[in-house]
Amino acid sequence: MSIEARLKALGVTLPEAPAPVANYVGFVQSGTLVYVSGQISADENGPIKGKLGSDLSVEQGANAARRCAISLLSQAKAACGGDLNRIIRLVKLTGFVNSTPDFTDQPKVINGASDFMVEVLGDKGRHARAAVSSNSLPLGVAVEIDAIFEIA
Amino acid sequence: MSIEARLKALGVTLPEAPAPVANYVGFVQSGTLVYVSGQISADENGPIKGKLGSDLSVEQGANAARRCAISLLSQAKAACGGDLNRIIRLVKLTGFVNSTPDFTDQPKVINGASDFMVEVLGDKGRHARAAVSSNSLPLGVAVEIDAIFEIA
Amino acid sequence: MSIEARLKALGVTLPEAPAPVANYVGFVQSGTLVYVSGQISADENGPIKGKLGSDLSVEQGANAARRCAISLLSQAKAACGGDLNRIIRLVKLTGFVNSTPDFTDQPKVINGASDFMVEVLGDKGRHARAAVSSNSLPLGVAVEIDAIFEIA
Repeated sequence: MSIEARLKALGVTLPEAPAPVANYVGFVQSGTLVYVSGQISADENGPIKGKLGSDLSVEQGANAARRCAISLLSQAKAACGGDLNRIIRLVKLTGFVNSTPDFTDQPKVINGASDFMVEVLGDKGRHARAAVSSNSLPLGVAVEIDAIFEIA
Repeated sequence: MSIEARLKALGVTLPEAPAPVANYVGFVQSGTLVYVSGQISADENGPIKGKLGSDLSVEQGANAARRCAISLLSQAKAACGGDLNRIIRLVKLTGFVNSTPDFTDQPKVINGASDFMVEVLGDKGRHARAAVSSNSLPLGVAVEIDAIFEIA
Repeated sequence: MSIEARLKALGVTLPEAPAPVANYVGFVQSGTLVYVSGQISADENGPIKGKLGSDLSVEQGANAARRCAISLLSQAKAACGGDLNRIIRLVKLTGFVNSTPDFTDQPKVINGASDFMVEVLGDKGRHARAAVSSNSLPLGVAVEIDAIFEIA
């Protein structure tokens, strides 16, 4: 099944990669590596806000992480000129979880992104990862994740 | 206008890249990529300390981030053997903002670094970015930023 | 002295790199770069937990960081098919210290990892680095560090 077919089967429509609003950009390619800017958790209703450990459950956090992954993949698609088949593999995810000081389930939250990447990209979606907390994130969002992809 | 001329026009003198004081170094080059160590906010009077959300305004934070960018560029210059024209582009900035748990303007703070890079490097200065909070930074500084450059 | 001989002289036995337990993996190689996933502080008794600034001394934190470095090197060894001599150099460490909001000795903590790398790898172990706090880490561990190695 192609990557686009898998997305369709999952009922996921990749949004257009948003144009940059400042002096940074959505992604930069250097050689075969594409560095994607940190994507914050958001859905069609806007930013997904809140802290893990007080406002949001682990499941809600994982869903927020999944939304970050969708945005990361949108940026990767733009980097590939629209052809997701040019993705050789996802190399690295670094995930930041907005949490209270006693929250310890960062991995379960970021799994929302990791699982999505493997659902869509198959073995090409298996990646190195770091998952940590941040005491606060832009706009008060629950999760921010950046990524490195290798593309053809 | 050359990069050095732009720096001059901005009234910015790049300090000598400080020699490492431990078993890590200011930068490492691998292929065409230069990984620059996290640079903490400091000026001629020493470290710029404080937390966003309590001690410092967003404008003060952005100025602190700009100082990090100056230090990052100093390291990149050293990596280029003194010739800033060897910079092909700034690939990535990862910015950590020392803040209270309710601070949400990390992007405006890190813009202090992003804007400086584009002022000096032009389009070569446009980069991928992540901007998050940290609940504390070395010496109590306001901002720490690391970078990846691509050089010729 | 070979890297393995240095490890022996230090009395360090690299554990088997643990198999991944989720949709992320211990490391990904892209070209000559190996991205190693964030390794949490742990020893033969399990995770090393606690916050710097309240539960743990700087020395205990540095020891926790050293354990992260041992795990990172185990992953690098696996990436090298068991031959540590294939390591060209350690490129970057990013260290996250679980701390209170007023803790400012992140560099001394992460030196536990930096020093170990140079003890074992010699000049190949000198690396770019970022060291920041996180208000909480997975399982409540004291330190998490990820790494990039260049290998032959």
